[in-house]
Amino acid sequence: MNKNEFAPTPPMGWNSYDYYDTAVNEEQIKQNAKYMAANLKEFGWEYIVVDIEWYAYDAGSKREQYQYIPFGKVEMDEYSRLLPCPERFPSSVNGKGFRPLADYIHSLGLKFGIHIMRGIPREAAHKHSKILGCDVTANEIANPYNICFWNPDMYGLETEKRGAQEYYNSLFALYSEWGVDFIKCDDICRMDMPSAKKEIKMLHQAIQNCKRPIVLSLSPGPALIEEASYYEGYANMWRITDDFWDDWKYLYQMFERCETWQSHVAKGCYPDCDMLPLGYIGKGFGKERYTSFTKEEQITMMTLWCIFRSPLMLGANLTKLDDWTKKLITNKKVLKLLSDSHKARQIRRTDTQAVWFSSDTKESIGYLAVFNLKESKQNIMIEANDLGLKSFQDLPFEELWSEETSIGTGLSFEAHVYGHGAKLYRIEI
Amino acid sequence: MNKNEFAPTPPMGWNSYDYYDTAVNEEQIKQNAKYMAANLKEFGWEYIVVDIEWYAYDAGSKREQYQYIPFGKVEMDEYSRLLPCPERFPSSVNGKGFRPLADYIHSLGLKFGIHIMRGIPREAAHKHSKILGCDVTANEIANPYNICFWNPDMYGLETEKRGAQEYYNSLFALYSEWGVDFIKCDDICRMDMPSAKKEIKMLHQAIQNCKRPIVLSLSPGPALIEEASYYEGYANMWRITDDFWDDWKYLYQMFERCETWQSHVAKGCYPDCDMLPLGYIGKGFGKERYTSFTKEEQITMMTLWCIFRSPLMLGANLTKLDDWTKKLITNKKVLKLLSDSHKARQIRRTDTQAVWFSSDTKESIGYLAVFNLKESKQNIMIEANDLGLKSFQDLPFEELWSEETSIGTGLSFEAHVYGHGAKLYRIEI
Amino acid sequence: MNKNEFAPTPPMGWNSYDYYDTAVNEEQIKQNAKYMAANLKEFGWEYIVVDIEWYAYDAGSKREQYQYIPFGKVEMDEYSRLLPCPERFPSSVNGKGFRPLADYIHSLGLKFGIHIMRGIPREAAHKHSKILGCDVTANEIANPYNICFWNPDMYGLETEKRGAQEYYNSLFALYSEWGVDFIKCDDICRMDMPSAKKEIKMLHQAIQNCKRPIVLSLSPGPALIEEASYYEGYANMWRITDDFWDDWKYLYQMFERCETWQSHVAKGCYPDCDMLPLGYIGKGFGKERYTSFTKEEQITMMTLWCIFRSPLMLGANLTKLDDWTKKLITNKKVLKLLSDSHKARQIRRTDTQAVWFSSDTKESIGYLAVFNLKESKQNIMIEANDLGLKSFQDLPFEELWSEETSIGTGLSFEAHVYGHGAKLYRIEI
Amino acid sequence: MNKNEFAPTPPMGWNSYDYYDTAVNEEQIKQNAKYMAANLKEFGWEYIVVDIEWYAYDAGSKREQYQYIPFGKVEMDEYSRLLPCPERFPSSVNGKGFRPLADYIHSLGLKFGIHIMRGIPREAAHKHSKILGCDVTANEIANPYNICFWNPDMYGLETEKRGAQEYYNSLFALYSEWGVDFIKCDDICRMDMPSAKKEIKMLHQAIQNCKRPIVLSLSPGPALIEEASYYEGYANMWRITDDFWDDWKYLYQMFERCETWQSHVAKGCYPDCDMLPLGYIGKGFGKERYTSFTKEEQITMMTLWCIFRSPLMLGANLTKLDDWTKKLITNKKVLKLLSDSHKARQIRRTDTQAVWFSSDTKESIGYLAVFNLKESKQNIMIEANDLGLKSFQDLPFEELWSEETSIGTGLSFEAHVYGHGAKLYRIEI
Repeated sequence: MNKNEFAPTPPMGWNSYDYYDTAVNEEQIKQNAKYMAANLKEFGWEYIVVDIEWYAYDAGSKREQYQYIPFGKVEMDEYSRLLPCPERFPSSVNGKGFRPLADYIHSLGLKFGIHIMRGIPREAAHKHSKILGCDVTANEIANPYNICFWNPDMYGLETEKRGAQEYYNSLFALYSEWGVDFIKCDDICRMDMPSAKKEIKMLHQAIQNCKRPIVLSLSPGPALIEEASYYEGYANMWRITDDFWDDWKYLYQMFERCETWQSHVAKGCYPDCDMLPLGYIGKGFGKERYTSFTKEEQITMMTLWCIFRSPLMLGANLTKLDDWTKKLITNKKVLKLLSDSHKARQIRRTDTQAVWFSSDTKESIGYLAVFNLKESKQNIMIEANDLGLKSFQDLPFEELWSEETSIGTGLSFEAHVYGHGAKLYRIEI
Repeated sequence: MNKNEFAPTPPMGWNSYDYYDTAVNEEQIKQNAKYMAANLKEFGWEYIVVDIEWYAYDAGSKREQYQYIPFGKVEMDEYSRLLPCPERFPSSVNGKGFRPLADYIHSLGLKFGIHIMRGIPREAAHKHSKILGCDVTANEIANPYNICFWNPDMYGLETEKRGAQEYYNSLFALYSEWGVDFIKCDDICRMDMPSAKKEIKMLHQAIQNCKRPIVLSLSPGPALIEEASYYEGYANMWRITDDFWDDWKYLYQMFERCETWQSHVAKGCYPDCDMLPLGYIGKGFGKERYTSFTKEEQITMMTLWCIFRSPLMLGANLTKLDDWTKKLITNKKVLKLLSDSHKARQIRRTDTQAVWFSSDTKESIGYLAVFNLKESKQNIMIEANDLGLKSFQDLPFEELWSEETSIGTGLSFEAHVYGHGAKLYRIEI
Repeated sequence: MNKNEFAPTPPMGWNSYDYYDTAVNEEQIKQNAKYMAANLKEFGWEYIVVDIEWYAYDAGSKREQYQYIPFGKVEMDEYSRLLPCPERFPSSVNGKGFRPLADYIHSLGLKFGIHIMRGIPREAAHKHSKILGCDVTANEIANPYNICFWNPDMYGLETEKRGAQEYYNSLFALYSEWGVDFIKCDDICRMDMPSAKKEIKMLHQAIQNCKRPIVLSLSPGPALIEEASYYEGYANMWRITDDFWDDWKYLYQMFERCETWQSHVAKGCYPDCDMLPLGYIGKGFGKERYTSFTKEEQITMMTLWCIFRSPLMLGANLTKLDDWTKKLITNKKVLKLLSDSHKARQIRRTDTQAVWFSSDTKESIGYLAVFNLKESKQNIMIEANDLGLKSFQDLPFEELWSEETSIGTGLSFEAHVYGHGAKLYRIEI
Repeated sequence: MNKNEFAPTPPMGWNSYDYYDTAVNEEQIKQNAKYMAANLKEFGWEYIVVDIEWYAYDAGSKREQYQYIPFGKVEMDEYSRLLPCPERFPSSVNGKGFRPLADYIHSLGLKFGIHIMRGIPREAAHKHSKILGCDVTANEIANPYNICFWNPDMYGLETEKRGAQEYYNSLFALYSEWGVDFIKCDDICRMDMPSAKKEIKMLHQAIQNCKRPIVLSLSPGPALIEEASYYEGYANMWRITDDFWDDWKYLYQMFERCETWQSHVAKGCYPDCDMLPLGYIGKGFGKERYTSFTKEEQITMMTLWCIFRSPLMLGANLTKLDDWTKKLITNKKVLKLLSDSHKARQIRRTDTQAVWFSSDTKESIGYLAVFNLKESKQNIMIEANDLGLKSFQDLPFEELWSEETSIGTGLSFEAHVYGHGAKLYRIEI
């Protein structure tokens, strides 16, 4: 199996984290999935991803003190494998795990993903639990010094020990039985523990072994640019930032990150700008809100993610989606960049503006994205020459958010862009 | 209680680590104590210290793989307090803990010390064990991200939470009941976890609370010189190096460390050069040997430790002590520097030599230590002026290792010193 | 010559920098000296120090662009030695250098100091100028990679090359001829260039060679605490901070610095808290102002500097000194701490308060300084026990700023201190 | 002008540094050029590059002390521009500069390159020399704190000041007059001074302004991978290592560097593995020698450089070139990879082996490079699957160094490779 075939274009979907934090339950997942199937699927949205802590009984119950409660009760099988908490995911009882929920998602024509933490549960190590198909026990492959710095659930693996790869194999065998299509593995992408790099490869190997084409997504960022070819070899997407939220300073910083990673976007290989904090978000965090991004900033975000070809994962509670947001995320001509554009390049970046250009893989089309990084409106000039064109004369332009069309003239082109906003032009060349 | 009164001169004793590693048992402790009482006590040696892992059942049993076995079985009471492993310390059965062994040591006229790790047992946190005299449980005060980087037994404390100081208080209440005179607390001196600095103060507070004058020794080093006054405020001794062993390179480095700390030696406050790897050592590490230090190097070590006024802790298996070593550690005139000298200052240090000078607190005596840091013999010149003296003319000199005496002449003095060796002169001034 | 005898108590004086920046001239120096002789000398103030750039013709002339103008014209003799700019110091013409000005200062009963930069003028290196008494030229001992990071005038020395020590010797021979009593050497104390440590020793050696007891002051800080004994060996005072100005945040930070250095104050050895930005300052910087410190903050500063025994160097334009400031700096009982107290120790420091205690060397007097680090008033409790006293019962107290007296009662004492203020008690014990 | 057109394939040439160090002269340049024209030109070798210090009179004369003599005499015009030292480059007299030598090189059908240091001569700044076409002087645009850490000749520019871009423009106007085709700019690629990044763009701008298609090469490395797109925007080649020499450890490290940079090789954009230390080298360094690389290591180097598509710059004294080396650098089928292959990817890298694969841009040809990183011979297995091929069955193989041909069988292929050696297969697919 060639892992690049698992995701021939950047994955598009929904993730429970931005709205529900650690506390999402089965019914909520189903409601969001239902909405997606009915309203978004036709535009390419297809993944439903259950994020962190689905195995924890008390997740979210002490939110003022902890995001991740230490030493809390978790659901685990005899082979050191975490299972969905049955109180939160009732269909998982009697060892059925996520199989029933995955079946439901699949019945809607969608795909099913889950989040995991790198390593093996600390509880399994302290209990000396078994590893499936192997005579070693969890304490023998858990490294007591190899911990995540923000989540207390796991120990990293002793990657060179017998039983370590077997443990990951046993996890993916289970996920394959369940029908999982997408794994977001956390505490691994930044490689801040020495074993993390090796564990990426072990996850890849476990996917190959399980024979199911499971997309592998790595978190959290920033990923290390000097390891670009390593990520490309073993994963489908990797976060190039720490958690992204609805604050202009993070969006501003993303321009530098995309510049850094621009030549590393390829089939099955996607530097990941993180989830889209659109619509209603933040409830599980105790501050439910409509996204703090202005409309212009939302357009900027969508434009950058699409021309760069980041995966798109919605953070909004879909059951509360408003018309404006829905329209924003269902613009077919914009979303087409994900599947049909390539070779996106940053043409220019200063403190106040950024310009990107890419082209269609099938037609003679150029895509020009012009970003205003200032708070106030400005006119931004682009030379045909900067885009490798002789002239703009007589070229048909369409701005894809406003659907306004025009005809180019001369050697340069001026875009009028609102503060923190963007324009995305489709140019026939 | 003024903690500086607990150790008015640098502590002198024996520690189980250098010979037995993690695996010492009650009988071995007793044998070494017996030897000390019979042979060394009269020279000032008095502490018997049981080093790390006395609570672990399997300590030392997988030595080729681990020094500290992760997730191994430990003896612990219902209040999250570690107890001696009864298989290794039979007198500790039925909750008697170290009380019988301490009684025995005291009956020999000696003092009893034990090693502890900063924090609370990981097992207690995962089991939600109780804390004595407090309604919180171990999971509430254990910080899952605050671990030691080389020992897997403990979690550091949530120092700001209710129950944390109470836990340390409960430990020292127990140690006080047992009759412990000396605590060597590990994973704390280097302050490489943010809570460690606070935990030093909490230990001090727990000693004050327990009403027993327990000497507090902090490990491992190097201690932070910029925190000198903090150590001085709360501890009696603090390691200024990482583990010290019988290799010239470590001894050579100690000269720089002593230079750094020279003005911080005071009553009850001792920068600690670590244990003396003399005689037979290394058995528990799988490489029993007679110290690799040459005789000259041993003299250098003893001279530096004594003029600097480091605590002296013997690493040798005392039951196998040879005459040469015994003589080395029972030179009364040399040991007198520990109790009666002060204001030791490094006069000079180059790549090839070091010179120290101090004076007696009671008599008009100067102590001059001359170290040859080269491999080959050299003559080292000292100017009277360098020592704050007008002249050496007519001053009586005694070299304290050889007991040779002479009379000074003129403004300078030349010491003939063997490679890696030292001379220690007592000068009547 | 024992350099510790050059400054048996912390030097007290005035420095041109805080008011005049780089642009002070002879007349201004004389006016400030005259004021000192008439008004402050009797209280112990005695040094008049000409700070940086006295050799530069255009110093201060492009202040909006540069503090130190690169490649500007300087006065230099044929032996690569900088001389006073004759346009600014008219008495220096015809090679007389600072001799006439020093004579004048001495005639007032004061002492004369100047600032120098570590190294040799870049211009001398590029011109291949001579070195006095030596056949090497400046280019041979200037290290083109060894520069100061904030001043463009000099190259550091090739300390191992013949001619380097000779150059420093030639400088101090000249300073000795001029009658210089105090050298503030800059770009050296922080040891941020590899040669700086060696150059400190070379300066010391040059002073010994010149036979004049010139006090050696090292700048800028922070000095390295791990090099404490090195500074003690070769210099009289060393800055423990970067430049200090009239802003509470710097004053607040000084408490930590003094804590760090508290055990390193001794005869002839003074960790230096930097100049006192009192009265009118800042003119050369283009922002002349009356110090921004509140009166309480000024009292805090004076109290800390005095109990810690920092050198005291006034930054104020003395010719504009107001009565309040004059009174602040001429409190005899407070200034007495500089000469007659010792063993100052920080007793306590939290985010909101600090307590120091020291004692008189001659009488049975304790000095207790209580600092309120909060903005608002607070009562601060001190236990007799914390100061090593059994009780405060019946002890006579005098607060040295207010001159209020009282009699102690019981085991504790409460100081009422204004926000950012201090109390300094003299206690007969 | 599109700078990517200046070097449509990786530049191939010769550089004076590896053999002559700083001391090459005109006659030596000509002799090497003559050899290239007669023997190597037909294989694609075309650049003749005069490396560092061509403007210095005394370059190489104090080699035991300095590689770069500080404050030495240099040839400079009135506009702060360095000129060839006429004693070393006689044809440059009377202001003719490198024009006569460039003409000669061009007459041989070759191209001419020179080395420059970032910035402006220190001497110009200290002399306040003029800048062409501008009323500012060198002291105004030289930054006295912005120096190279290994060469003492220059100050970096005040890039934001008027006159800075004008100075670079004046340099390239001169180089264009001379007929320079290639500039290797030093002290810039690693961006270890804050201005260096900006100066790269300024050099690019100066080339655009001068209207001559001058190839821009940046030194020294390692270049910063996170700045990949910046180098791609403004330069033609950038060093991905520090200086490379004939020692296996450097060659071994290059595999990691090439892995890091593999996706950044494109038309006009070449990550640069540095010069090839082949044949006779090292004379100017005082250790003339035949390359210390074994023949196998030389094959490894050439194979890696060619499949990766690094520029190729010969370090050998061409006038002493032996037959073996000549054959090594004139293998047409190997050199064809530089011009006709693309998308080279590292397939595997372990401590002991590395495998790369690329393909021809014009024909259905795959290139497989197999490297043995161990000292002893080994057989290295490659799966067809790893290269994206279904099978090797019936595919014609040619090993390009030995010219041995074979026919593939089955799903895997085994390469027998000598210690530190390589095989390079051309496979018809």
